[in-house]
Amino acid sequence: MVQRTGIPPQLFVVLGATGDLMQRKLLPALFHVSADEMLRDKVALLGVARSPLDDAAFRGRVQASLTAAGVPEGDRRRAWASGRVHYHRLTPPGEVGYRALGERIRAIESAHGLPGNRIFYLAVPLSAVADAVREIGAAGLNRAPGFTRLVLEKPFGQDLASAEELNRSIHAVFPESDVYRIDHYLGKETVQNLIVFRFANTLFESLWDRDHIDSVEITVAEQLGVEERAAYYEGAGTVRDMVQNHLTQLLTLVAMEPPSRLDPDSIRNEKVKVLRAVRRPEADDIVLGQYGPGTMDGTRVRGYREEDGVATNSSVETYAALRLTVANWRWMGVPFLLRSGKRLSSKSTRIVVSFRRPPVTFFTGEPEDLRPNTLTITVQPDEGFDLTFELKPPGHRLEMQTHRMHFRYGEAFGPLADAYQTLLADLMRGDQTLFVRADEVEAAWEIYSALMEHRPEVHVYAAGTEGPAEAERLATSVGARWSIERP
Amino acid sequence: MVQRTGIPPQLFVVLGATGDLMQRKLLPALFHVSADEMLRDKVALLGVARSPLDDAAFRGRVQASLTAAGVPEGDRRRAWASGRVHYHRLTPPGEVGYRALGERIRAIESAHGLPGNRIFYLAVPLSAVADAVREIGAAGLNRAPGFTRLVLEKPFGQDLASAEELNRSIHAVFPESDVYRIDHYLGKETVQNLIVFRFANTLFESLWDRDHIDSVEITVAEQLGVEERAAYYEGAGTVRDMVQNHLTQLLTLVAMEPPSRLDPDSIRNEKVKVLRAVRRPEADDIVLGQYGPGTMDGTRVRGYREEDGVATNSSVETYAALRLTVANWRWMGVPFLLRSGKRLSSKSTRIVVSFRRPPVTFFTGEPEDLRPNTLTITVQPDEGFDLTFELKPPGHRLEMQTHRMHFRYGEAFGPLADAYQTLLADLMRGDQTLFVRADEVEAAWEIYSALMEHRPEVHVYAAGTEGPAEAERLATSVGARWSIERP
Repeated sequence: MVQRTGIPPQLFVVLGATGDLMQRKLLPALFHVSADEMLRDKVALLGVARSPLDDAAFRGRVQASLTAAGVPEGDRRRAWASGRVHYHRLTPPGEVGYRALGERIRAIESAHGLPGNRIFYLAVPLSAVADAVREIGAAGLNRAPGFTRLVLEKPFGQDLASAEELNRSIHAVFPESDVYRIDHYLGKETVQNLIVFRFANTLFESLWDRDHIDSVEITVAEQLGVEERAAYYEGAGTVRDMVQNHLTQLLTLVAMEPPSRLDPDSIRNEKVKVLRAVRRPEADDIVLGQYGPGTMDGTRVRGYREEDGVATNSSVETYAALRLTVANWRWMGVPFLLRSGKRLSSKSTRIVVSFRRPPVTFFTGEPEDLRPNTLTITVQPDEGFDLTFELKPPGHRLEMQTHRMHFRYGEAFGPLADAYQTLLADLMRGDQTLFVRADEVEAAWEIYSALMEHRPEVHVYAAGTEGPAEAERLATSVGARWSIERP
Repeated sequence: MVQRTGIPPQLFVVLGATGDLMQRKLLPALFHVSADEMLRDKVALLGVARSPLDDAAFRGRVQASLTAAGVPEGDRRRAWASGRVHYHRLTPPGEVGYRALGERIRAIESAHGLPGNRIFYLAVPLSAVADAVREIGAAGLNRAPGFTRLVLEKPFGQDLASAEELNRSIHAVFPESDVYRIDHYLGKETVQNLIVFRFANTLFESLWDRDHIDSVEITVAEQLGVEERAAYYEGAGTVRDMVQNHLTQLLTLVAMEPPSRLDPDSIRNEKVKVLRAVRRPEADDIVLGQYGPGTMDGTRVRGYREEDGVATNSSVETYAALRLTVANWRWMGVPFLLRSGKRLSSKSTRIVVSFRRPPVTFFTGEPEDLRPNTLTITVQPDEGFDLTFELKPPGHRLEMQTHRMHFRYGEAFGPLADAYQTLLADLMRGDQTLFVRADEVEAAWEIYSALMEHRPEVHVYAAGTEGPAEAERLATSVGARWSIERP
């Protein structure tokens, strides 16, 4: 369940409506957000692409997508997927085609009594974004009787220069206040919760600084390999695909100062301040890796260079570990350890905050033997929190054992809504908080721009392992250890 | 399971061996500590009382006690309760009788090859303690070839003057280093753990002061009434029976500074420092109550004045709530709210630490509406920890809900040993850490001495309720709320 109040009548236009993102993510999320009584008469969907389809054929695709997403058939689904779902074939390309699209939009709005609030969702490759935005502008579709919002999916450029250029193209047509850049990690429940969790709990926020925290780890581990995305991935790699966006966004939410208010720009201002305080990592702050052949769940899997569409001598990284410094008063001296990789032993996205050890121990051993308290925020799967603490085991005098308290969303609330539902509802309501601002994108690219140019060596690791052994060095160099997944 | 290493061969002498404490607590605990292979040939038990029993009759009582305590019959139990269990009838009273006891002790030690390590456990009423100690001294039993330890049960006096006098009588015969005063709350697992918990977890100890804690509550709630103890209780009341000892001991462990080392006297020095920093409560810091008739679990129960052995106009309190000030650098300004009572709605001993609220809120309402984070340490039953925190419920934007993480000893370790097992093993080993020192007793009485003399009004409350409504005032006066039991 996501919040739906405050969503006005509108037309949701998706460019690239026959693509994978539309089928797998947008259609099921749109259905869940808008199919109920409150919104079903207020929101119409217009799919746009080059394929020669009509409304009926497109509605068949919509039904197939909902079936694949596990949405049960029935009246509610039939009503939604027929009444207000339309398709427009974009032809010819260029301004003439876009003017025809404008005609179609106005016709649909008129037929459904919509007041001219429009969303243009670009579910197209990066290479097509700038052209699409320009044609929207040239056809005068950047202005409407109501609001006009532009939605972009990652990647937002390939490096700092291309990101800046893309933002210039966008701002020539849309003001930033109408631009919604999606990083779907920001829609995940535990990520949204980070701000409440930090600023409503003195227990944690009182300790949230260099005086009390020893290190922060952010791990995004995947079990999947490159799958069908080799064409894209060969031009990207883990740093562009995961680190610059998802992991860096998580970092900003962990590290940001309390905003003066909770409006979208106050929060995003604080996130940008964090990004600008991050020092560019140097060669010995980075370990890159690429998966070789290995075994996962007892099955042999191919190495990256053996995957379809991958060059047999590819040096693209499928793993990256970084040691970042946030050079400000709150965080200086606290290493932020980031890592992400494909074909790792487990699937898990988590943030691990390790607190400082006690200054003295009168228990067993030396202070270095004391295990630090840790707070683990699990973003996926099995969202929740784990807090480790030391305890005297019964029957022993003044010895210690590590135990944990935990909270799991699933136990408290049942299954959570997909991140896209949250983000689409916010978009339709006009709340930019969970969307990435232009200066955030650029500041994040700036951190990794040197790394894009002078690439470190890429170490091969066997699929199904924890990644290259060299990554250990990054953690041990700062007296930390990479977390192992909760047993 | 308690730790048994380091316990030398010894004779365990119990004076008052036919009494209730011996039957219910000491015999089962002694069995669990000493019946296994490691100790069964090293420890002998000599029960002493006035009743005309012989070894065989006493062993029958021992067997009955173990059966009542749920110890399964079998070879192990038979071997323990026969081979090394003896009885001595103390007659005539006075020095002659004690000299005869000395003869018997030496005979038993000789028969079992014991080296002359002796424990004298006084399981006798307060009125008999001073005499027994004096006679032990007069008969020369305060010295032995090995160690001689004196064990006392509460009450340790009736007020400051009588406690000082009792300590003088004891110290005329035994040095403090041989005296073991039992407060069985100190043997409870979660209480023992307090020192490890505080000083091995920076997460908590970093917040353990007036800058981060709003209030501390210590609750010992009983469902039982006065039961068979009216004769004692009419001369005692809740402040003497519970507050001066158990609740005040819990307070010292929560509030103490880290000791410089973990030896018994370093720890007890810190506890005394806390007691000396506690200001004597004034009239408006105290609410006393006495239970009237009421309903518990659907059954009518009598009021205190209707109980057998209680004066029909008794003004003895069965409930006390206090607001204490610990006037030192760590705690000044943090109210310690203590309460204990009989015939309350639930049975629970717990310590609740309420942390400060965030200084600003940009969520719903005012900072005062924010719920503070709380750490609840449950001493009994269902020992463990609960930590409450604020969370954004899924599907809402920037609202808050209170949730909890928990740890339960029962889930991690199974059933815990009775506190007496821990304390007897420590006593037999010679570790005074969990025993109350003379100056602790006196400093604790000092806090309550004015209260003993100028008794505030006693409010009647219905059995089965939360106690007198007047107790609310103590909490609300400092912006706090008494905790309700975990649902």
